[in-house]
Amino acid sequence: MNEIERKFLVASEAFKKEAQNKAHIVQGFLNKDPQRTVRIRIKGNQGFITVKGKSNASGTSRFEWEKEIPVDEAEHLIAICEKGIIDKYRYEIKIGNHLFEVDEFLGDNQGLIIAEVELSSEGETFSKPAWLGKEVTGDIRYYNSQLSKHPFTEWS
Amino acid sequence: MNEIERKFLVASEAFKKEAQNKAHIVQGFLNKDPQRTVRIRIKGNQGFITVKGKSNASGTSRFEWEKEIPVDEAEHLIAICEKGIIDKYRYEIKIGNHLFEVDEFLGDNQGLIIAEVELSSEGETFSKPAWLGKEVTGDIRYYNSQLSKHPFTEWS
Repeated sequence: MNEIERKFLVASEAFKKEAQNKAHIVQGFLNKDPQRTVRIRIKGNQGFITVKGKSNASGTSRFEWEKEIPVDEAEHLIAICEKGIIDKYRYEIKIGNHLFEVDEFLGDNQGLIIAEVELSSEGETFSKPAWLGKEVTGDIRYYNSQLSKHPFTEWS
Repeated sequence: MNEIERKFLVASEAFKKEAQNKAHIVQGFLNKDPQRTVRIRIKGNQGFITVKGKSNASGTSRFEWEKEIPVDEAEHLIAICEKGIIDKYRYEIKIGNHLFEVDEFLGDNQGLIIAEVELSSEGETFSKPAWLGKEVTGDIRYYNSQLSKHPFTEWS
């Protein structure tokens, strides 16, 4: 139930040409505390409830628990979430054996694009596409829970 | 998804003789905010995740969403809950058409016994057993989320 992933800024929109999938995601938080984040997500016609714990020292691994739930239940749950709903497009891009999930944020986080790659171990290597920018793994400012409180367009 | 219920203190232990069921419950909270409470519960060999919203003005009705989850997953989730795990016995007592759930608290809330009865409408009447004490419906001090923060044995 621990997820190992690395997170990067995205330097150009070239990734869009390589995307195999694009989905609209709306999500809110029942708790934004990085030690026990509770997220409600609607992705296309699916709903999810996800709990995340705190990360390890390197920021690569974090406890994660998720269940799919009906969209109408997710909508009721989003209605009682804290302020700061996240709205974004998610692109999926398979490169070699790895899936990159690239989030293009809308609304208060417009202008921010983040790529995540999930790994099976901390040391696993992967091919870096040219559009991948600076690594921000473990930087909690880029957690969606924190972007919901302190959106990108308000950063100084 | 709204639950209508009334809550009472329990004046004597006479209810124990009438109980049809007794279960041990351990529960923690991923969020104790009464507007978006997230509870993880282990009841016997079942696990649950439950979200509750804020109540209406009379305190009788509250948004509630619940899913059963495997006990081992509930254990992992309880491990990242906030401090203040609730430990109690729950007795079930059917009186007429109504089910009374009586919680006898242990640990930091020892000495507190609360009965709840679920109703199908706000005005519905029900038979009050002799052991039922003062009504505390809508008093958030008696929410389990609040007992977890401010346990009964520390009340002045």
